[in-house]
Amino acid sequence: MKTATTPDQIAPLREFVIATTEVVTQAMDESARIAAIKPLLARLISSDDWLAEDAAKPHPDHYCQYLLHCDPLERFSVVSFVWGPGQRTPIHDHTVWGLIGMLRGAETGQHYRWDADGRLQASGEPSRLERGDIELVSPATGDIHQVANAHADRTSISVHVYGANIGAVARHVFDAASGQVKPFVSGYSSSAVPNLWDRSDAVRRNITGAAA
Amino acid sequence: MKTATTPDQIAPLREFVIATTEVVTQAMDESARIAAIKPLLARLISSDDWLAEDAAKPHPDHYCQYLLHCDPLERFSVVSFVWGPGQRTPIHDHTVWGLIGMLRGAETGQHYRWDADGRLQASGEPSRLERGDIELVSPATGDIHQVANAHADRTSISVHVYGANIGAVARHVFDAASGQVKPFVSGYSSSAVPNLWDRSDAVRRNITGAAA
Ligand SMILES: [Fe+3]
Ligand SMILES: [Fe+3]
Ligand SMILES: [Mg+2]
Repeated sequence: MKTATTPDQIAPLREFVIATTEVVTQAMDESARIAAIKPLLARLISSDDWLAEDAAKPHPDHYCQYLLHCDPLERFSVVSFVWGPGQRTPIHDHTVWGLIGMLRGAETGQHYRWDADGRLQASGEPSRLERGDIELVSPATGDIHQVANAHADRTSISVHVYGANIGAVARHVFDAASGQVKPFVSGYSSSAVPNLWDRSDAVRRNITGAAA
Repeated sequence: MKTATTPDQIAPLREFVIATTEVVTQAMDESARIAAIKPLLARLISSDDWLAEDAAKPHPDHYCQYLLHCDPLERFSVVSFVWGPGQRTPIHDHTVWGLIGMLRGAETGQHYRWDADGRLQASGEPSRLERGDIELVSPATGDIHQVANAHADRTSISVHVYGANIGAVARHVFDAASGQVKPFVSGYSSSAVPNLWDRSDAVRRNITGAAA
């Protein structure tokens, strides 16, 4: 079989997936798990040339959520969140923990909480994530927010890690004015994910090295 | 986010991946592992409408090996092997166990063994796999073979499960006449794999069902 020789550009994502798989395989509570995964995500977003072009494409009408990897036992998933200029989410929850790492551009976020009168109220100051920044969402510490591209004139991309197969999680979107809650299941923006596993060039180089 | 609603056609492959992940997570010897996975593969190849079109395309010049799933700890991988009319492999080994399940069309195979004089000799009768048939290769029972599309006039497709990330395994091709052995690392024919994890339509239907 003839195979295209491509540099192993996707290696940082593969290494993140392997290390995170090892973390979720160990028994630990949620906060310890998040603490173990956060530095792995920080390393992943310290460079951005590993992101496959197909998972970096904005859509003119809405943000995109491309699956990069789903753990086969659905203990975690990794997505690229691609913001076209000026795009934003509705107010939404996750129902599972999530780490949001800024890869390109910037995004703004606002957390919300239910007040004593059963109204959804902005909670805390708006946040702004710049490249390399990481934010947490979690049912334990604050799960409802609204997020937007900080830029009106260009694409921004963040990489999210969630404690489940996020595209298949039953969650909610909210209307702050009316307090209306609607069911929400995000799905994914693509029917393909990147192939992380073609390490063949490195293996071939090793063989050549060994024979030389 | 707007998501295309597509029927969950890929469910049989996802179910195979989940069940096989559960098998490789358990401690057992290789023959028990193969015995546990074989009926899962038999079920997978009992229908063929789950195979993504991108992983079913023949190439005019050579066979293709599309990655369908790689276990993140590289304990197993699943590929579609797509034969154009009349295409064949060189004589090759695997160095790890593999199960070959016929999905569409048919293929012929011939096992080889080193004889006492250090020559590679055909071993046993040529085999023919028809749709639904499964064959084993393994260093324990016979690892060297040559395989070909049984059809000169159409595409055949088999689904292979290997006990490693097969595209990155250092293995060998052989010339029977000269006895020459060359290193071989197959890689994969595509930089993308199918997204198995968009179960969103079923989750949405469940929510609707619960509310009704
Ligand atoms: Fe969010
Ligand atoms: Fe083979
Ligand atoms: Mg869908």
